[in-house]
Amino acid sequence: MQNFDYMTPTRLIFGKDAIKKLPEVMANFGKKVLLTYGGGSIKKIGLYDKVKELLSDKEIIELPGIQPNPKYDPSVLDGVRLCKEHDIDVILAVGGGSVLDCSKAIAAGAEYDGDPWDLISYKVKAQAALPIVDILTLAATGSEYDCGGVISRTETNDKIGYMDEHLYPAVSLLDPTYTFTVSKKQTAAGCADAMNHIMEQYFCEDTTLLNDGFCEAGLKSLMVNARKCLDDPEDYTARAEMMFACTLGCNGIYALGNSPSGWPCHGIEHALSAYYDITHGEGLAIITPRWMKHILSEKTVDRFVKYGVNVFGIDSSLDRFEIAEKAIQATYDFFGSIGIPMHLKDVGIDESRIGEMAHHIAVNEGLENAYAPLTESDIADILTASL
Amino acid sequence: MQNFDYMTPTRLIFGKDAIKKLPEVMANFGKKVLLTYGGGSIKKIGLYDKVKELLSDKEIIELPGIQPNPKYDPSVLDGVRLCKEHDIDVILAVGGGSVLDCSKAIAAGAEYDGDPWDLISYKVKAQAALPIVDILTLAATGSEYDCGGVISRTETNDKIGYMDEHLYPAVSLLDPTYTFTVSKKQTAAGCADAMNHIMEQYFCEDTTLLNDGFCEAGLKSLMVNARKCLDDPEDYTARAEMMFACTLGCNGIYALGNSPSGWPCHGIEHALSAYYDITHGEGLAIITPRWMKHILSEKTVDRFVKYGVNVFGIDSSLDRFEIAEKAIQATYDFFGSIGIPMHLKDVGIDESRIGEMAHHIAVNEGLENAYAPLTESDIADILTASL
Repeated sequence: MQNFDYMTPTRLIFGKDAIKKLPEVMANFGKKVLLTYGGGSIKKIGLYDKVKELLSDKEIIELPGIQPNPKYDPSVLDGVRLCKEHDIDVILAVGGGSVLDCSKAIAAGAEYDGDPWDLISYKVKAQAALPIVDILTLAATGSEYDCGGVISRTETNDKIGYMDEHLYPAVSLLDPTYTFTVSKKQTAAGCADAMNHIMEQYFCEDTTLLNDGFCEAGLKSLMVNARKCLDDPEDYTARAEMMFACTLGCNGIYALGNSPSGWPCHGIEHALSAYYDITHGEGLAIITPRWMKHILSEKTVDRFVKYGVNVFGIDSSLDRFEIAEKAIQATYDFFGSIGIPMHLKDVGIDESRIGEMAHHIAVNEGLENAYAPLTESDIADILTASL
Repeated sequence: MQNFDYMTPTRLIFGKDAIKKLPEVMANFGKKVLLTYGGGSIKKIGLYDKVKELLSDKEIIELPGIQPNPKYDPSVLDGVRLCKEHDIDVILAVGGGSVLDCSKAIAAGAEYDGDPWDLISYKVKAQAALPIVDILTLAATGSEYDCGGVISRTETNDKIGYMDEHLYPAVSLLDPTYTFTVSKKQTAAGCADAMNHIMEQYFCEDTTLLNDGFCEAGLKSLMVNARKCLDDPEDYTARAEMMFACTLGCNGIYALGNSPSGWPCHGIEHALSAYYDITHGEGLAIITPRWMKHILSEKTVDRFVKYGVNVFGIDSSLDRFEIAEKAIQATYDFFGSIGIPMHLKDVGIDESRIGEMAHHIAVNEGLENAYAPLTESDIADILTASL
């Protein structure tokens, strides 16, 4: 078991009608609020009007239009400019992980005098950030309970995971009913995203019985509940459990004390999203089983055996490699069964830029230090196998 | 899944040599430290000297001699008096759950003008508390990661669980090597305490797949690792995993969103410890299987089936009640196998005060609202079956 230093100061207000606590929560901050959101789904479900009604005593400046794979330019830059112009006290992010990730970069940039990219690229360490409150509308990224975000810079094909301890949301309001209208595509992608967050922590050198049990419980819970959400989008219990299993995804609690894995599937997928702007969870679902197959070896096989037996109930008396192969196939089959397109070509990616992407990943993601080290050639092989 | 409102602001610094961060941690507080500890085991293992050496720039006032089942008089009262006399800035608790629980009551009392019992008995709500830092030397209670403590008042046979959101430790330093010298008796009692914390959250009306998996992982991890710790007290990995599984015990994370259970075994055991000052974990281990047997019914049997199959690997094809009976027997057998005396008479308790204790529990613990409601007569039956 590895040493760790852990604290999550975020308050989670979870459940139906959590929004009733919004006025009480926002009373802890100043009068000027930057309200950030995405493409307008929060207007369709009435959440936008509800927020405005509950915060009628506040001065609200809006930053709408934050896209999936949120962009440095214009969203982060616009947000930082608005915060500075209006002397904003607190950011209220209403939406999914992209809105929240973008809001985190804005929160840090607003308290920094230079170019916000200095912070995101780790050239300069943030000294402060505006407080963030969020109202979550998508179960997926876990950004509501971690201190990180992923920001894309289109002109350089960069998609950078940016973490700083100032960026934990102060409060996350998690009402599962706001996810009732999430499409089948996004429900499935959210499930795959959260499952991969857990796998990135599970597949490592040094784990514990406790952490393995936590991760296996998370994976099984996500698979069962995602299916229920797809069958009946208004199944409150399934939406609730899926939301919470996702919330813990990147917070560390699934695997405190595990050795680092290098998060290889995320490293690879970030390039896919940066080059082709695909849905993150779909990219992960496509990459994951090919990555598994590529790294299966005498060194890793026992992890796959544990995964196969405990998560998929594969017969433990079979040959180790047979169990592992079955587990990888079961992973592939599950993602396919919830409607995820399982080939890169299905999401508009062909072989033309694989070499370029593999090089970009090898240079930027440090995967030579991953649980199963990956060279540029390994990465290209995984991408090719994913076509 | 139930609504919840959750935040744990405690920083966990976990692992070998965690104490190296003590000076950095303590630098965030003032100069005047109340150092609280127990019977002197921290001197035997060199921890007392180490703390004094690392904090040579601080002014340290000491409160030694805090007992198991920590006493309101003299420990809490003495601590509060010392804090006020010396204008203490921060409490450094070095020891196990009793030292920490006592320190929490002191921390609240130090910031209150009246009788500290007003706070502990919930007559008055604490408005503030001194910050607490702890160095843990016993894996058991989880007090290092929650906002509660249990305080005993000898003259009235009261043992009260006192919780307040001001009482989360600011920082908990968790070095498993400090538990190498914990006796077999206390290692086993700590395991039983932590297992019961999980069971008190697991046996309830409304749970989730995720929470059940977390709880089952916690129980299995504790059983496996406690045995290893008993076999080899210096098995770092086993001590580490056991310590962390205990740390999460009362923090809520095992079962956020589960319906409340009423913590019946704790309700009953608190009277045993208050009347007879026995070791809390041993009392819990004795009560738990008898409580299980008493509440087994058509309403509860399915929880016992899940528990039996998933925690003890009992054959799921057997009759439901047969599985439940086997699960209860396995619980009893496990506690016995780690050396816990499994009858009240083994810890010096006879039938003479059962009626009096059952009445005290029925009046004070609210167990008529527990998962399986308990009347005074039910409680007396459970105590009698435990003789």
